[in-house]
Amino acid sequence: MKPLGPIPAGYTAIGGELAIGGKPASHWVEAAGRTPLFVYSKDLITHRLADLRAAMPDRIKINYAIKANSFAPVLDHVSTLADGLDIASGGELEMVRAMGFDLTRVSFAGPGKRDSELEAAIAAGVTLNLESETEADRALGIAARLGKTPRMAIRVNPDFELKGSGMKMGGGPKPFGIDAERVPALIARIIAAGCEFRGLHIFTGSQALSAEAVIDMQAKVLDCADRLAGEAGVKLPKLNMGGGFGIPYFSGDEPLDIAAVGAALHDRFAHLPETLADAELFLELGRYLVGEAGVYLTRIVDRKDSYGETYLITDGGLHHQLAASGNFGTVVRRNYPVAIASRFAAEPEETANVVGCLCTPLDRLADKAHLPRAEVGDLVAVFCAGAYGASASPSAFLGQGPAAEMLV
Amino acid sequence: MKPLGPIPAGYTAIGGELAIGGKPASHWVEAAGRTPLFVYSKDLITHRLADLRAAMPDRIKINYAIKANSFAPVLDHVSTLADGLDIASGGELEMVRAMGFDLTRVSFAGPGKRDSELEAAIAAGVTLNLESETEADRALGIAARLGKTPRMAIRVNPDFELKGSGMKMGGGPKPFGIDAERVPALIARIIAAGCEFRGLHIFTGSQALSAEAVIDMQAKVLDCADRLAGEAGVKLPKLNMGGGFGIPYFSGDEPLDIAAVGAALHDRFAHLPETLADAELFLELGRYLVGEAGVYLTRIVDRKDSYGETYLITDGGLHHQLAASGNFGTVVRRNYPVAIASRFAAEPEETANVVGCLCTPLDRLADKAHLPRAEVGDLVAVFCAGAYGASASPSAFLGQGPAAEMLV
Repeated sequence: MKPLGPIPAGYTAIGGELAIGGKPASHWVEAAGRTPLFVYSKDLITHRLADLRAAMPDRIKINYAIKANSFAPVLDHVSTLADGLDIASGGELEMVRAMGFDLTRVSFAGPGKRDSELEAAIAAGVTLNLESETEADRALGIAARLGKTPRMAIRVNPDFELKGSGMKMGGGPKPFGIDAERVPALIARIIAAGCEFRGLHIFTGSQALSAEAVIDMQAKVLDCADRLAGEAGVKLPKLNMGGGFGIPYFSGDEPLDIAAVGAALHDRFAHLPETLADAELFLELGRYLVGEAGVYLTRIVDRKDSYGETYLITDGGLHHQLAASGNFGTVVRRNYPVAIASRFAAEPEETANVVGCLCTPLDRLADKAHLPRAEVGDLVAVFCAGAYGASASPSAFLGQGPAAEMLV
Repeated sequence: MKPLGPIPAGYTAIGGELAIGGKPASHWVEAAGRTPLFVYSKDLITHRLADLRAAMPDRIKINYAIKANSFAPVLDHVSTLADGLDIASGGELEMVRAMGFDLTRVSFAGPGKRDSELEAAIAAGVTLNLESETEADRALGIAARLGKTPRMAIRVNPDFELKGSGMKMGGGPKPFGIDAERVPALIARIIAAGCEFRGLHIFTGSQALSAEAVIDMQAKVLDCADRLAGEAGVKLPKLNMGGGFGIPYFSGDEPLDIAAVGAALHDRFAHLPETLADAELFLELGRYLVGEAGVYLTRIVDRKDSYGETYLITDGGLHHQLAASGNFGTVVRRNYPVAIASRFAAEPEETANVVGCLCTPLDRLADKAHLPRAEVGDLVAVFCAGAYGASASPSAFLGQGPAAEMLV
């Protein structure tokens, strides 16, 4: 038997079934007309933002990194709660534009921006987080041609990392940002070239659950920003301090202590250096805002035994849940939080493998899980499906196509 | 420096550039109007099938598993060369139907077939490779309701595996097929229920490069099929012997010796048991037929240095090349065959990392590769992109969208 990840707070049972947004899972499946289905809870997103704002100093602003979940109704809802949006491609710019969001509150990071993407962003007044000196030159050339003043920040590749993070993005050679030591010269250069300087972006890693690691990282980010601004002789109008706030996926994971993170920021903000005194200070979060608010529902289409093991075979799989299957950035596969949604209140009574419908042994949703006995027709829930689920999975694989999605 | 995988046979230079189908890579990019672009070579597919048929006994028939690449022009071309097609979903059934292929030469395997998929397949005369007793019951019920005689084969979960295969699909508890010991009873049951019995399907693994392992596996498949048919007291009309033929992806990989595999089959076919005497004998291949015939072309949009390392940043990435990035079924990432397509004839002179445009450290196309010096605007080629590339990658990730595809 292998443990399942912890089910996030906010999920209860109604009539024995998993409830989402006050209704049983089967209600949403009926409304969608099919499985597999991602259900995202508006309330859970709203509460997450409210709890976060309550824990953080008033001065902190919150950006949503839309790559985590850009399903239009989710994007629309989060954008009413966040202070700004971060995009990572021209495609995401079009999503944000279609929503009618104020594009001057959008910033664009990404190491491989095409000229066409730079042009669209500059024309729209989006802030570019510059990833290299040559990108700065390309952007300045495009802005001159358009007769626009470009809004530019610099993404720093810092000489430190976020300890214990699931994905390191600083501390050593990286394709992201500009090595810290070269940043002051570039600040001077882009200001001299006439851009509207929008400060720095320092992102060092993601998916950290240790408050101590996040506090340490944020202290270093503030120190680094102060040092680079000081060397360049500027005050920063804005500092994107990055994100890194993780959510619990696996057995033994504990939620990040945001109260501790907020208290440490309060202390730091009491004596900010001159370079940061007037800066807008942003956190950039994606997964943390929406990850736990989503559930993936898939129906059991077969139940079989093979050499003593039980398999629950669903109509979903890794084509919608690549990370849960253990195939995205993980070395050792561990179980996400998974439950039998249609028997959510029942006691576990057997050990079963939950797999997807694809003809590949990679397609596993839960390995040797302790679950209530489930039959064909029952619904399986995979939690923590609100971020990097639908959009980060190969939905066309084996001709399956995308899952349904709804915000409730 | 880390080695690159071996460039497949059949690729040469024209005017210093990589040539595909007799024209330089830049020609195809111009024709497509954009990068990233998958280019598939009709000739290389045709030659692969011809070489394979020359090496195998005449009696061997070849099925194409369309999951490897179902881009319509590729599917159309392969279907003129193969004896039958294997599908894995209702979605793939519709692709094959749209092409006008004879659906009685199609078989459908997959552990999670929905009722609607079973119904569509039965109505179309597609052979079902049954994955469980309960699936057999569901299919028989649906056929009775439709007033159709279902065409049924049984997928066996054998008690042996394909040694050294990249992906094991036999030998122990599995979600695929029916445990061998229960197969004779099911043969009797579905024949008694009035189906058209289409034999057995025994698939034990994929991506093997050792002829010895494939020969051993095929011998065991024939023995297993004979034993199960004998116990059921039937002669097999058809045996799908599975596939498992691998292609070289990584440094040190050698092509599978198909002459040796063919010779061993010749010997076996000289004294087939009575149960197999009249059977149609099929290989089911996907990757082996099309994998090396495809190249992924992506353009360098930035070249940068970070703490002593060089990064070539492309407009492509893991959203089209999940497996090449090392994120699909691999524990230790190794480099695929990668080249600077626009400088294909040049000597390597630097060590560089080739990365995609996504904001994630997972997005790597080549690590510390020895390459000719490349600049912004150059084209990068990732080889072995003909199978499990476009359709097995999360193309919507970060709002990027699909690559262009063409068969030339």
